[in-house]
Amino acid sequence: MRLSAEHARERFAGSPVAVLGTSGANGVSHLVPVTYLVSGNKVFIAVDGKPKRTQNLKRLRNIAENPQVCLLAQRYDDDWTRLWWARADGTARIIEPDDVPFGVLGALTERYPWYRTNPPDGPVIEVTVHTWSGWAFAEGPPALM
Amino acid sequence: MRLSAEHARERFAGSPVAVLGTSGANGVSHLVPVTYLVSGNKVFIAVDGKPKRTQNLKRLRNIAENPQVCLLAQRYDDDWTRLWWARADGTARIIEPDDVPFGVLGALTERYPWYRTNPPDGPVIEVTVHTWSGWAFAEGPPALM
Repeated sequence: MRLSAEHARERFAGSPVAVLGTSGANGVSHLVPVTYLVSGNKVFIAVDGKPKRTQNLKRLRNIAENPQVCLLAQRYDDDWTRLWWARADGTARIIEPDDVPFGVLGALTERYPWYRTNPPDGPVIEVTVHTWSGWAFAEGPPALM
Repeated sequence: MRLSAEHARERFAGSPVAVLGTSGANGVSHLVPVTYLVSGNKVFIAVDGKPKRTQNLKRLRNIAENPQVCLLAQRYDDDWTRLWWARADGTARIIEPDDVPFGVLGALTERYPWYRTNPPDGPVIEVTVHTWSGWAFAEGPPALM
């Protein structure tokens, strides 16, 4: 069944990983896995600045060409009565490393212990979500599914 | 580290779920979770024909407008040394329900027990992959990570 915007947002916020879809000027989707933080209707996505800089550039270049992005978080289980997914459609902007709010980095580090020893030092993608949507096989909180 | 095309294809083929990214004429990415089957350089994606027909139409309409698609499978784990992802970039076409090869439906049903009692009766999206790529924190087969 369809999830309400609020329930989709809650499930999305609780997932540790999502997929970010961007499309550049050529209009072709490009997908990457992302870690993130949800605050209200904003999603803050960490970009690791160190390794494989060229790999990171593609998503950032796409956003510069077309800020409309799509994010999807999901739960898969061999028991399909436990399936759900939550989607966020929104507009992205890139926050350069020096301009990333301290609170965002702190909250990302709290959410992902890995960042305690490997702080994300690249830019942050801020997505302002205009549409939360989702689906779950069964109703109820994810923990009970 | 980067995965070879062959290793990316293997990991993608072994995952039970992926995310499909399509972009319609407006060039905005649209993401949905998908179940699928890999055969050589082709990915066959089941589309459930019954519920929420309108939901399914978006990805099919996008493909009709722009057949270039992107698929991403990944493993997430709180231990980031176990992370990996595999991506397939390719060209999609839609196979109408009556034209879906019997072998494809059979293999999908073998891969997903759910389909034994709920056979996928919608169209199938066939993606001819031109680029397999991927990344893993650590080398080696996924089972050992």
